[in-house]
Amino acid sequence: MDISRDAPIGVFDSGVGGLTVLDELLVALPAEDFVYFGDTAFFPYGDKSPERLRERAIAISDWLLGHGVKLIVIACNTATAAALDHLQRACPVPVMGVMAPEAHAAVQTTRNRRVGLLATVATVDSGSYSRMVGAHDAGVEFTSVACPELAPAIQDGDPFGHEVADLVRGYVAPLREADVDTVILGCTHYPVVDKLLRRALPGVTLIKSGEELAREVAESLARRELLRGADREGEYSFACSGDPAQFATLGARFLQMPLGDVLQHDPEEG
Amino acid sequence: MDISRDAPIGVFDSGVGGLTVLDELLVALPAEDFVYFGDTAFFPYGDKSPERLRERAIAISDWLLGHGVKLIVIACNTATAAALDHLQRACPVPVMGVMAPEAHAAVQTTRNRRVGLLATVATVDSGSYSRMVGAHDAGVEFTSVACPELAPAIQDGDPFGHEVADLVRGYVAPLREADVDTVILGCTHYPVVDKLLRRALPGVTLIKSGEELAREVAESLARRELLRGADREGEYSFACSGDPAQFATLGARFLQMPLGDVLQHDPEEG
Repeated sequence: MDISRDAPIGVFDSGVGGLTVLDELLVALPAEDFVYFGDTAFFPYGDKSPERLRERAIAISDWLLGHGVKLIVIACNTATAAALDHLQRACPVPVMGVMAPEAHAAVQTTRNRRVGLLATVATVDSGSYSRMVGAHDAGVEFTSVACPELAPAIQDGDPFGHEVADLVRGYVAPLREADVDTVILGCTHYPVVDKLLRRALPGVTLIKSGEELAREVAESLARRELLRGADREGEYSFACSGDPAQFATLGARFLQMPLGDVLQHDPEEG
Repeated sequence: MDISRDAPIGVFDSGVGGLTVLDELLVALPAEDFVYFGDTAFFPYGDKSPERLRERAIAISDWLLGHGVKLIVIACNTATAAALDHLQRACPVPVMGVMAPEAHAAVQTTRNRRVGLLATVATVDSGSYSRMVGAHDAGVEFTSVACPELAPAIQDGDPFGHEVADLVRGYVAPLREADVDTVILGCTHYPVVDKLLRRALPGVTLIKSGEELAREVAESLARRELLRGADREGEYSFACSGDPAQFATLGARFLQMPLGDVLQHDPEEG
């Protein structure tokens, strides 16, 4: 298959969290077009089996490939863990996920070789970040903190309220104790409360999936000579499997930009 | 007067805009205490005379000095233009304002010596930024764009909606035309739509008052040996002259952190 430079980039996630990844992609690659799919009807991915998630990821990728995408981004930790390898084997275009870029960046960044992780229970339990960090530098001391209540509080409550502030203070305590100088935000919801986290972790460098993945995508397209010329402003469009109005409202808060019309689509109905 | 290292830092503004400055101060100086005053009953400052603004600034500074502050930050362009010199002469503690730090940073940052400015009509008309940039490098080509509708749209409307996105696109057009590589965000409201601005100005470095002023305050306190030890989490408190509930709600959006209780106070009633 001959990949066209003028084709859009496809991005998907279980919902709105991946929009913090898309927003970094939009800033890093302003000339590119993007198609985003939020699998809101299937949200949350955390309680689905890896087999179901792989089927779902294949169905979504087929839909994105139907839009002629030149590259697919999995903007979700759970889907990356369950389906990245599988999609990379199955798809005729490059597929990239979160985790590997942040793990690499954290090792490049730390000075005292103490790295922390804030993530969901599933992501911490999988041990993926710890393994990936260890693969780059086996001498790094790695401290993980599972934050079961943080992503739901950011999504369903007031992200700038006292509840989230108190949660953050509690979750970072073990990282301060461990004297880490670099912390991976291992969940796409967390950059929404970037300011709170920066204040709760003074002197610590925060590594975000979105920023690192955007850099990786840009470099990868550049090496393949698939980047569009800089003389245009790219477009972006959205679809979701659940309620489009709800997606648009919640989404603008995560993207920090307007979403425009949101299409509704069931990926498994073809 | 002997200034105590353990004293809080005072910050004031005509309303909530200065909270984007406070939020950088809170991140840069996590061990310091802050007292913030939002002069919401007197908002907007843009239509008041310089004499009235000086009186008002003196009254607010007296109140902050009554709280024993070790340094006063004017987190507002209009108040800095009207009252900085005056307060610096009148106050027994250092007083710092916006504009000078950003102007210096812009000159340090530009590679092609083309610098742009986005600001209110009053700020552009005052010519302050242009003079300050010129004082650091007379060879810089300076392009100003007055954005009369942007701050009101961010404050009163949906900052992540289409109206703001369209406004931003229009206002940055002359800066893209002028091929600037560095743009000063000359109004404390603009960092709220940072993501939109970054996308609208690809490849351009954005200079924000809050970040530059926070760096200046930190350096200044460090040189004077007035920085607090890093072994504590500082506190912050708020007062305003208008409706405290409204201030708390709108303020959390600008600060991206919870505000807690807001005290109501009329600075000219003493």
